[in-house]
Amino acid sequence: MNRIRAIVFDLYGTLFDVHSVAAQAEAFFPGRGRELSLLWRQKQLEYTWLRSLMGRYASFEQVTDDALVFACNALGLPLDAARRQTLGDAYLQLRPFPEVPATLQSLNRQGLPLAILSNGSVRSIDQVVRHAGLLDRFAHLISVEAVGIFKPHDRAYELGEQHLGLPRSSILFVSSNAWDAAGAHGFGYRVCWVDRQGQAFDELGERPDHVVRGIDEIPPLLA
Amino acid sequence: MNRIRAIVFDLYGTLFDVHSVAAQAEAFFPGRGRELSLLWRQKQLEYTWLRSLMGRYASFEQVTDDALVFACNALGLPLDAARRQTLGDAYLQLRPFPEVPATLQSLNRQGLPLAILSNGSVRSIDQVVRHAGLLDRFAHLISVEAVGIFKPHDRAYELGEQHLGLPRSSILFVSSNAWDAAGAHGFGYRVCWVDRQGQAFDELGERPDHVVRGIDEIPPLLA
Repeated sequence: MNRIRAIVFDLYGTLFDVHSVAAQAEAFFPGRGRELSLLWRQKQLEYTWLRSLMGRYASFEQVTDDALVFACNALGLPLDAARRQTLGDAYLQLRPFPEVPATLQSLNRQGLPLAILSNGSVRSIDQVVRHAGLLDRFAHLISVEAVGIFKPHDRAYELGEQHLGLPRSSILFVSSNAWDAAGAHGFGYRVCWVDRQGQAFDELGERPDHVVRGIDEIPPLLA
Repeated sequence: MNRIRAIVFDLYGTLFDVHSVAAQAEAFFPGRGRELSLLWRQKQLEYTWLRSLMGRYASFEQVTDDALVFACNALGLPLDAARRQTLGDAYLQLRPFPEVPATLQSLNRQGLPLAILSNGSVRSIDQVVRHAGLLDRFAHLISVEAVGIFKPHDRAYELGEQHLGLPRSSILFVSSNAWDAAGAHGFGYRVCWVDRQGQAFDELGERPDHVVRGIDEIPPLLA
């Protein structure tokens, strides 16, 4: 794998576990936490795609809150203002996957600029990364907020190339979200799909260049 | 409800039951038919949205086949060429919901032009409607194929207005898909959401003008 001069990571689901909110959900709704967490995430993604297609961008925080309201309605779970606020805040305190901190440090030592390119707002990305103590690892925290449309639209992916000042073919884009990996590959990035759970890849006419089980398999790939 | 001069129906899930393929799926994969049918439909929708955002339109038949391949991979179900073909063909022979034939006849008697505006190709729409013996009911069968992007993009919704030669505010758009009802409302149609199962409406900043439990509740609304 030659010519890789920078790495751009997706945030939610790739570096940070979105289902780490399940514990808070479970505390509020015993026996339903996992179910709520899954539907909430599914709808959060759907709403980013649908709003992008409708030309009705709203912030990721708004979309996340909307998706939570829908998920609780659909599952018949009572969501009062306090629970809504607490669950929304849980999205700002996500846990990184276990191998993430040490791997980022290792990549820093290899001298490659690292960036995050996320659907989240600038404020959310900053808070999540700061809360995990990983702010120093990244040269750029990039939000699609700047273009007002979510991934997998090309205008979102272009932001990585622009911030890094490098051609897309020399950038490795890393995502656990198959649709995101497909979109980034269609755009022209080199793509590594992080498949932690042995899932099926989406059938969107694109395939990743590399598949790993965790981001700790990336440094050896670059060596 | 004054001023309604034509009705535009969504096809899949609104007039025709997409889960009527579950019986064929169940015959191939005993005990897994419903699960396959649900994931297949979910992915079919996702792929229409994702391909539209990626600027990579493919026909609805292609997307439907891709979604079937993904769903079988994800569920660990063996899909050979014959099963793949048979299941794809099942999508051309969907059953209309029970109240649909008589209601369309009733609306015809009221003298309103009826149209279908669907993500399906011209060929698929024609086959599905013809197979159910309902071709004579419609003045227009409209496919997003003409614009190469799926609903809920405005370019798809514009086709209804163009074919009918009427302003959007005088057209009633009918869909069971909450995201479609939201998109059509955002575009400017009058919207009736068909909620057969008492589901939660999507949180996309739009609400339908009317909610019914079946399309047989529409003629009284117009009287």
